[in-house]
Amino acid sequence: MRKPLSSLFTDLYELTMMQGYWLSGLRDRQAVFDLHIRSNPFKGGYTIAAGLEDAVRFLLELEFSEDDLEYLRSTGTFREEFIEGLRGFRFTGDVDAIPEGTPVFPFLPLLRIRASLDQAQLVESGLLNLINYQTLIATKASRVCGEAGRDNVVEFGLRRAHGPEGALMASRAAYIGGCVATSNVDAGRVFGIPVSGTQAHSWITAFPDEITAFRKFVEFYPSDGILLVDTYDTLKSGVPNAIAVGLEMRKRGSDLRGIRLDSGDLAYLSGEARRMLDTAGLTATKILASNDIDEWIVHDLRAQGAAIDAWGVGTSIVSASGDSALSGVYKMAAVQDESGRWIPKRKLSDAVEKSTLPDLKQVFRLYGEDGYMMADLLEREETPPDTTGVVWGHHPFMIGVRKRYEGISRVEPLLQPMIRDGELISPLPELTAIRERRLNLLEELHPTSRRLMNPHVYKVSVGPALNELADRLREESLRDP
Amino acid sequence: MRKPLSSLFTDLYELTMMQGYWLSGLRDRQAVFDLHIRSNPFKGGYTIAAGLEDAVRFLLELEFSEDDLEYLRSTGTFREEFIEGLRGFRFTGDVDAIPEGTPVFPFLPLLRIRASLDQAQLVESGLLNLINYQTLIATKASRVCGEAGRDNVVEFGLRRAHGPEGALMASRAAYIGGCVATSNVDAGRVFGIPVSGTQAHSWITAFPDEITAFRKFVEFYPSDGILLVDTYDTLKSGVPNAIAVGLEMRKRGSDLRGIRLDSGDLAYLSGEARRMLDTAGLTATKILASNDIDEWIVHDLRAQGAAIDAWGVGTSIVSASGDSALSGVYKMAAVQDESGRWIPKRKLSDAVEKSTLPDLKQVFRLYGEDGYMMADLLEREETPPDTTGVVWGHHPFMIGVRKRYEGISRVEPLLQPMIRDGELISPLPELTAIRERRLNLLEELHPTSRRLMNPHVYKVSVGPALNELADRLREESLRDP
Repeated sequence: MRKPLSSLFTDLYELTMMQGYWLSGLRDRQAVFDLHIRSNPFKGGYTIAAGLEDAVRFLLELEFSEDDLEYLRSTGTFREEFIEGLRGFRFTGDVDAIPEGTPVFPFLPLLRIRASLDQAQLVESGLLNLINYQTLIATKASRVCGEAGRDNVVEFGLRRAHGPEGALMASRAAYIGGCVATSNVDAGRVFGIPVSGTQAHSWITAFPDEITAFRKFVEFYPSDGILLVDTYDTLKSGVPNAIAVGLEMRKRGSDLRGIRLDSGDLAYLSGEARRMLDTAGLTATKILASNDIDEWIVHDLRAQGAAIDAWGVGTSIVSASGDSALSGVYKMAAVQDESGRWIPKRKLSDAVEKSTLPDLKQVFRLYGEDGYMMADLLEREETPPDTTGVVWGHHPFMIGVRKRYEGISRVEPLLQPMIRDGELISPLPELTAIRERRLNLLEELHPTSRRLMNPHVYKVSVGPALNELADRLREESLRDP
Repeated sequence: MRKPLSSLFTDLYELTMMQGYWLSGLRDRQAVFDLHIRSNPFKGGYTIAAGLEDAVRFLLELEFSEDDLEYLRSTGTFREEFIEGLRGFRFTGDVDAIPEGTPVFPFLPLLRIRASLDQAQLVESGLLNLINYQTLIATKASRVCGEAGRDNVVEFGLRRAHGPEGALMASRAAYIGGCVATSNVDAGRVFGIPVSGTQAHSWITAFPDEITAFRKFVEFYPSDGILLVDTYDTLKSGVPNAIAVGLEMRKRGSDLRGIRLDSGDLAYLSGEARRMLDTAGLTATKILASNDIDEWIVHDLRAQGAAIDAWGVGTSIVSASGDSALSGVYKMAAVQDESGRWIPKRKLSDAVEKSTLPDLKQVFRLYGEDGYMMADLLEREETPPDTTGVVWGHHPFMIGVRKRYEGISRVEPLLQPMIRDGELISPLPELTAIRERRLNLLEELHPTSRRLMNPHVYKVSVGPALNELADRLREESLRDP
């Protein structure tokens, strides 16, 4: 259904390094890379994982066409033996991933790749692009929908999204993040997301007057017509005309579904419009608000008691206003040496958020007796933590800082095997299931970590075995700069 | 070369309005729509037009496949006669546009569509998506490159761009905006943009030590190897090892092309690295800086005299940090009534930037005797201004505010005919020509309007005939609310 990605969907340096690994005899060394974020976007308390389906598809479909090889040849950067070697290339590694829709946090590997060094290197750029973007948008949508409570949020962002495919992926991610529908018809077709829409100012101005434009619209769309009331004057013209049309519909036995406010002071206008609608007896007519809405505006309007029933949100969701990119990176965690022995790798940086953790890791999500998530414990996969008693979780980077976890009622390993030897081994979930997952799992995150303003920092800790390894590597790096 | 866009690349409401126009008998009314921006992004003094090639392609290729029609049928929103009527649909209208690479300003029509009402409505969402995004990125890149002066700026943004196609379009727009190369290999193939890259930290950590990693790299890439020096310690390890390798190369008769600084205080580190390189005699080795760079950081580092020769800029360009979406809108300027008479349309809003100007317009760019752009004059196409003497330019929205333009040395109409009756009538320029156009035309914009901080506001004025019409429509709207 979706167009296949190009194998040249990568940064040049991935290909030059790949050729370099081949020429250096490192082609078949196995390596482990982690894709993790450095911080939650939007100064928020959580992040919603998304993009895995596209990432998996990218890996499974990766191959070089003759056209790709011809282009690489034309650059003059690559040797003929390398170009020929790319013919028949397939990704044959292993992938473990945290499922889409899961609330995640800085330093958790969202994706863990174990593959030959050249393969793991080649796919870096593509994986980052796919995961960074959809995760960012799903998180933004989740923030908006979280503030909207039980109100419906419809994603209207096609016109401000970053290109046609950007819009498509944004609609998918927004749906994962909690939106109930999209205006993007192609997203409806490709992903089965419900589509929704109202009308533009041009519909109103195409007719001699507003009430004619309204009458015509509900004549054609009697059950789902939503009337845009701000073309001339919201309270003096738009709402009265909508009420007149609503009363005409009532005589024919149906209700006007809604009106849309698209400018002005939405708190004031929604209250006045609600009062006017109710006075006319149109209590079933809903009020939809749009116009540069984001999570903070939803929060504020609801705190003011605005009479808004549903939200049309475009730009802020699809362009992730406030943090237009996610901080996802892809870092080497281990590599085999010439004898086949695994060498764990760790990058230390003065900038703490740029440091990484070594080795093949699993993420263990610990739950407390209250049912809420307690902390995420990063540990070497080969040594899962004993959670029957007290678990000590070490700070990922601050030496000697640790936390005591007890009363653990449940443990969930988050990384799930997706690909083994280049073959998909877990079915990809339906989009509706991913959407449900976010909804359900986010309820398990304490509300203090979900709030917009200064959210409580959810703990990500390092288990004893990983901590010992990380400490040892730090000591070694100090001895041998 | 590029994948065709879907005809469902639109908001649902465009299709429901389209069906509504058909059912109302308005299908064949001609209408004029303008695509304009409401403000320059990034609080800047100008905007670089981009995206026209994709917009034209979208219009020329627009058709509904059987799959598209089947999906529309499945929604239950559309009547069978409408769905059948979309079979064989083609865009048959006229398009005039300001060429890509042109500096533009708020309220100029970047695109002017004259088509049947239904066609003009259908294409709104797609045109906005394509123009908004590329214009935003070209403008951001132009700002970064403007601050970099004669230094090269390479776009490295694939991993943070909004999806694969978003990355591709961003690379194109960044090239228009002045970048000399991209890391995105697919953008190299599709658009012929030069591709460039250095190396990742994983290359360094895949080898037993840094100097071995450096040696190997320049062995394979002797003429264009740029060494990443911050994996362990920039000044204590990276730069000394790069110098050692550079001196080895020197013995073999070649120069190390460059080093890349990717963390830390770039002002300090670049100065120290330059001193160390020069002391070793490696004066030809360039310093490339990366790490979350934007136009403000380039400006600041250059003001500090940082010894940086080239800039690798990713996230900030491709995700347009600071203003993740452009304010482009698409508004009706005129529509025929039932007798075929043109009715100019104007939207007035309390929010000045949400108001629009009526009728079929041309943009006349006035140049002064100093060779700089003096102002842009919006005027009714049928009455071009007489610029031989004094021209009075009216403020687009403030009544009675006008400006006297004299000493006009040259006038350029900016809107050029692109499509007539659905056929392309002007060849689309080569990408390199678009890039040159930006470079040359931006030199004609006074430097005070190009600076980052509080740029001088370039004047967009309304000519006498358009002003008279706009005034009349305002008067009428006051009389007849």
